[in-house]
Amino acid sequence: MTQIASDHIEALIRHTAELARAGMTPATSSNFSVRLPNGQCLITVSGRDKGRLQAEDFMAVDGDGNALEAGRKSSAETMLHSQIYRLRPEANAVLHTHSLAQTLLSMQYAEQGRIAFTGYELQKAFHGVSSHEGTVTLPIVANAQDMTVLCSATEPLFASNAFWGYLIAGHGLYTWGRDIDEARRHLDAFEFLLNAELTKQGIRA
Amino acid sequence: MTQIASDHIEALIRHTAELARAGMTPATSSNFSVRLPNGQCLITVSGRDKGRLQAEDFMAVDGDGNALEAGRKSSAETMLHSQIYRLRPEANAVLHTHSLAQTLLSMQYAEQGRIAFTGYELQKAFHGVSSHEGTVTLPIVANAQDMTVLCSATEPLFASNAFWGYLIAGHGLYTWGRDIDEARRHLDAFEFLLNAELTKQGIRA
Amino acid sequence: MTQIASDHIEALIRHTAELARAGMTPATSSNFSVRLPNGQCLITVSGRDKGRLQAEDFMAVDGDGNALEAGRKSSAETMLHSQIYRLRPEANAVLHTHSLAQTLLSMQYAEQGRIAFTGYELQKAFHGVSSHEGTVTLPIVANAQDMTVLCSATEPLFASNAFWGYLIAGHGLYTWGRDIDEARRHLDAFEFLLNAELTKQGIRA
Amino acid sequence: MTQIASDHIEALIRHTAELARAGMTPATSSNFSVRLPNGQCLITVSGRDKGRLQAEDFMAVDGDGNALEAGRKSSAETMLHSQIYRLRPEANAVLHTHSLAQTLLSMQYAEQGRIAFTGYELQKAFHGVSSHEGTVTLPIVANAQDMTVLCSATEPLFASNAFWGYLIAGHGLYTWGRDIDEARRHLDAFEFLLNAELTKQGIRA
Repeated sequence: MTQIASDHIEALIRHTAELARAGMTPATSSNFSVRLPNGQCLITVSGRDKGRLQAEDFMAVDGDGNALEAGRKSSAETMLHSQIYRLRPEANAVLHTHSLAQTLLSMQYAEQGRIAFTGYELQKAFHGVSSHEGTVTLPIVANAQDMTVLCSATEPLFASNAFWGYLIAGHGLYTWGRDIDEARRHLDAFEFLLNAELTKQGIRA
Repeated sequence: MTQIASDHIEALIRHTAELARAGMTPATSSNFSVRLPNGQCLITVSGRDKGRLQAEDFMAVDGDGNALEAGRKSSAETMLHSQIYRLRPEANAVLHTHSLAQTLLSMQYAEQGRIAFTGYELQKAFHGVSSHEGTVTLPIVANAQDMTVLCSATEPLFASNAFWGYLIAGHGLYTWGRDIDEARRHLDAFEFLLNAELTKQGIRA
Repeated sequence: MTQIASDHIEALIRHTAELARAGMTPATSSNFSVRLPNGQCLITVSGRDKGRLQAEDFMAVDGDGNALEAGRKSSAETMLHSQIYRLRPEANAVLHTHSLAQTLLSMQYAEQGRIAFTGYELQKAFHGVSSHEGTVTLPIVANAQDMTVLCSATEPLFASNAFWGYLIAGHGLYTWGRDIDEARRHLDAFEFLLNAELTKQGIRA
Repeated sequence: MTQIASDHIEALIRHTAELARAGMTPATSSNFSVRLPNGQCLITVSGRDKGRLQAEDFMAVDGDGNALEAGRKSSAETMLHSQIYRLRPEANAVLHTHSLAQTLLSMQYAEQGRIAFTGYELQKAFHGVSSHEGTVTLPIVANAQDMTVLCSATEPLFASNAFWGYLIAGHGLYTWGRDIDEARRHLDAFEFLLNAELTKQGIRA
């Protein structure tokens, strides 16, 4: 393995351990990937406990998501990672998690097809956003077990240019960044905004 | 002690320390067991702090729950563990915890006798479930201090085939798996779904 | 310092570090003590961060709460600890904390003068309680900055025999046990029951 | 670097790591500073993950907030730190965080321009407060991306003498103390009181 690949894996292991401790990867759910300079991706193997990932829990896939290591099965949702890398050339890391806020709000707002945030200083955590005065929109698609169906649902979302993630209803969040640290910053910002929205619903109107 | 027994105990200690940190074993409550290839079980001794378990806090019982070590008292609820191993031959690990969500929802839904989950991707964490579109049902029985009464209440539940746990009202959750890691995955999935349900009740209808 | 004193201090440091991490000792609040076989008590010095206590943050006081070490000031609430040791001969450890649930429910129920818990398996965590079917009562007194006033308010509570703690409104919980581990078990049980009550208020009626 | 500067940085790193773990510095937000005996300040460099600060993530600025190290950019909000040090001569440490409670309540109470706390024992955590019977007031100003606008909004607040922090709506809290430990105690106290207020809104009226 190249030095750059092993550095990326080390960074992903550190981030996923933190996300697991924060309850964002319940019950072996969630998956994570990084794109290497040669166009290949490293992605989590299916079904591991995300709080205890080790280097061998990542495997290489090509740009279309095909396994490059005989006898190993990448995450069932590899196709969604490949789609993001294909349609967002600037994306080099993809994080997918299953927090309570992601799950509940994606179900509650599924019919509207989106949830929008405005007036939060933390919107500036997203690359390209420089004020709390705009609106950050997080699209929502219906869940499906057939990855082809799911990819057809998410594909039109990429027509938008200012767009750093989407929710799958009852399932979780996909987000990305130009590198792993930016993907993590986007994930933390979405999670904060979703928790703010969820908590606000408990506030006396 | 055999190597397999000591490996199992090490795994249980690691899991229970994590569950304790997550607030799932308040005030020395909760108990945990594993079934060995010879049919004996290792189960937590009564009354220990589950965040600090050591190898000597586990003891061997036979298939009927009788202590195999003179002068030691296994958990008061050993009978419930033995019942699960007897009626679920595939079960090899049983985890019993007392979280806030388990306690509150088991009281709130006690009269209905069950709580049902549908539409959550995380339902797939249960062995044999492959889609979010079905329904996962978690039965609830009334609490009792007499273990014979409690076992009579839980026995009919085992007539169902797709069934990975039950709640005792005001008390907590029993769940199991084919091995310790699967039991833990089932526990985390039930805990997530119960917290989702509890949080949803605070969402503006 | 005797071996027993230093063992007790080590145990208190471990427990208070855990309580601090759980958010129960915000902003240098809270205090803790243990009674030694010779009738003296070791109690936390005033104003320290409870997540970082060291042996020198404890000091000896006599049975009436008078400092036995020149130039050191014990916690302002030493009188409340001394009262508990005087009126509860079986108590050998006293824990006082300031959690959110303790603060909010002690204010909400201040007029009723008590909060009662029934139907929870966890009531059995209190010494002498063997079923979830009884009622555990936690009395509440008004807050005061004058310790004489506060002691006059709490004194009548000790007429009851089954009684393992009290709340001061807007302030926090005092609880005790026959030893440090039992005091901690009682604290965890009260905290769980208070959080259950607080969460239940958010459940759709 | 002087010994005192490096001790202060070590203390700030410890505190910010704890604040990051508590979720108070989401997505590289938040910033922290300390005033040295020579009038210069050490402040966090822009955009770092606050859970992983190292000594080189702090930089020196003069009393007006001008960078004293070529080629480095201090936090965008350095002006707000400088204003506090200028108008509060006793302040020697400033902590700025972005918790959920700070964000939500600063938006909810923005129109009233303040949030007031009364009846909490924890009010005594603020320097100069000796009873729960008074009122602690936390002023709120509107958010702005132009630091000159923001400083004009906060300047009149300093006419008050008993005043240990302010909220910026949808953004977060600024608080300070005579030293780092006092600033942290004030931060923890504000955070506790804000969470109490937020939780109270979920309590059945």
